[in-house]
Amino acid sequence: MSSWKASDDSLKKHMTMKYYIEKTLGASFEEAVEKVTENLKKEGFGILSDINVHEVLKNKLDVDLSKYKILGACNPPNAYKALQAENKIGTMLPCNVIVRELEDNQTEVAAVDPVASMMAVSNPELKPIAEEIKERLNRVISSL
Amino acid sequence: MSSWKASDDSLKKHMTMKYYIEKTLGASFEEAVEKVTENLKKEGFGILSDINVHEVLKNKLDVDLSKYKILGACNPPNAYKALQAENKIGTMLPCNVIVRELEDNQTEVAAVDPVASMMAVSNPELKPIAEEIKERLNRVISSL
Repeated sequence: MSSWKASDDSLKKHMTMKYYIEKTLGASFEEAVEKVTENLKKEGFGILSDINVHEVLKNKLDVDLSKYKILGACNPPNAYKALQAENKIGTMLPCNVIVRELEDNQTEVAAVDPVASMMAVSNPELKPIAEEIKERLNRVISSL
Repeated sequence: MSSWKASDDSLKKHMTMKYYIEKTLGASFEEAVEKVTENLKKEGFGILSDINVHEVLKNKLDVDLSKYKILGACNPPNAYKALQAENKIGTMLPCNVIVRELEDNQTEVAAVDPVASMMAVSNPELKPIAEEIKERLNRVISSL
């Protein structure tokens, strides 16, 4: 039990740490998906998975959500380096980018911050890779 | 820069924290994929994404890796609760389960520990959801 207590204490220290990089666009959901896909490609990311969360939850639970997509983005050279450094890091790959429909033709795009999501992985070889990916994702989002 | 220093210090505290739940099976890669998919279904998880990492890296980088799959597992009621509590938690969903071919007809299966991967998310409503999912993933892996 004591390890959980330690986690709670550490978690409090991260109260101000953001786990995502986001921007709200004056664009439709579909336009935002297209634009972020283009930007990801420019930064060397392919899309390996594409989940329409609103459709999954409508089908499974019959609930109505605004459009919400999870794109799984992968930069192959960095993914390869990360897997060589840490063979189970696939549990945290690919890097997700969400596209979320808001009101009034506004759409939010948010990429996971890999430095934050991999906080529990204590492998110093991984840190520079996560930081490079974070920089790329920062450019993807800021140039939307 | 001071916030990064704080993260480093906290990271050290988590040196003993595992970010995955794993088991090595005396089974082929294909048998392990089938078995973990069945077990996930029994615990209410559907597979929303299925990435053959070895194929992606062969196609993109022409490197030869052992078979390595990332399954994106989703338990819809809990995903819905998590999204209601934290609208950008999709950046950390679905929960990944990797299947990794070892030598001598051995295969490793590892599920992300959602309590560890969501460590950077400071939302107390999320914690019981992550803990419930962790319990379910524990049962998925232990009954392999």
